[in-house]
Amino acid sequence: MSSSEKIEFQPIGFVRNDHPYGQRPPTWQGICSRLQIDPRWQEALDGLDGFSHIIVLCYLHLSRERGAPVRVRAQGNPEMPLVGFFGTRTPTRPNPISMTVVPLIERQGNVLQVQNLDMYDGTPVLDIKPYLTRGDCHPQATSPEWIIRLWAIHDAQARERENS
Amino acid sequence: MSSSEKIEFQPIGFVRNDHPYGQRPPTWQGICSRLQIDPRWQEALDGLDGFSHIIVLCYLHLSRERGAPVRVRAQGNPEMPLVGFFGTRTPTRPNPISMTVVPLIERQGNVLQVQNLDMYDGTPVLDIKPYLTRGDCHPQATSPEWIIRLWAIHDAQARERENS
Repeated sequence: MSSSEKIEFQPIGFVRNDHPYGQRPPTWQGICSRLQIDPRWQEALDGLDGFSHIIVLCYLHLSRERGAPVRVRAQGNPEMPLVGFFGTRTPTRPNPISMTVVPLIERQGNVLQVQNLDMYDGTPVLDIKPYLTRGDCHPQATSPEWIIRLWAIHDAQARERENS
Repeated sequence: MSSSEKIEFQPIGFVRNDHPYGQRPPTWQGICSRLQIDPRWQEALDGLDGFSHIIVLCYLHLSRERGAPVRVRAQGNPEMPLVGFFGTRTPTRPNPISMTVVPLIERQGNVLQVQNLDMYDGTPVLDIKPYLTRGDCHPQATSPEWIIRLWAIHDAQARERENS
């Protein structure tokens, strides 16, 4: 296929939680979401609940209109360096698809209950996959210094939330 | 957005290697591929090479026509149980998007050299993301018994290849 060809997808379902766009929680850690999958795919979920963790691909439909500046700071944090958007997980990218690994708490029919998913209520789901430690888990992977610094900032914020 | 709405993407680049469709290598482990990213996104790759591993999302364009049977056996292996396709990584799924974590060997301009990517030559690339151990790496994740058995089969096949 050529680089100008269009690729068409349709949502397989939607994220449901208490956080519509504009009501971002202080942290997504611990936030429960339901993935409401189209009932026609219900049987295709059989066996998924044998996995403790799943991969959720979503369509970041709200980020599309915002355009994609080539250089961004991770999470818009002014302490972070300007890097190309492919060097970050910013939602503003040419094909705004998110990839998140989350614990699968429960499956009931066509609904998957998950935790820690950083997606607003109503976000379209594109795909669900089992998380395979062999292939998906690379503890030896290394990151640049600024990511380590970003994680330290997150940790400090979490401690602050706990103490307040 | 509604469940019937269409989502449109375009390739950001293509996989290049010596394995066109139909010429599957005995294993993708060790196979080198180039990700040729559209030159207009070249600057957006700046900073990505600070990461040892990247996440590659591809459009599995060849699997679309084959349709998606609801129940499949992992890798078509008759020793595997029939499970719903969302419980496997089969390419035949409603939105055929792959997710692979690979070591990033080198970046030269708009070309990323990677290893172990299980994609045929010409596969369209949808997105590239940095692999973040915090968030993407879950060594404690558990899998059903049949996946452990599948990995044992892979190990036995790898030993056979080495000895022949």
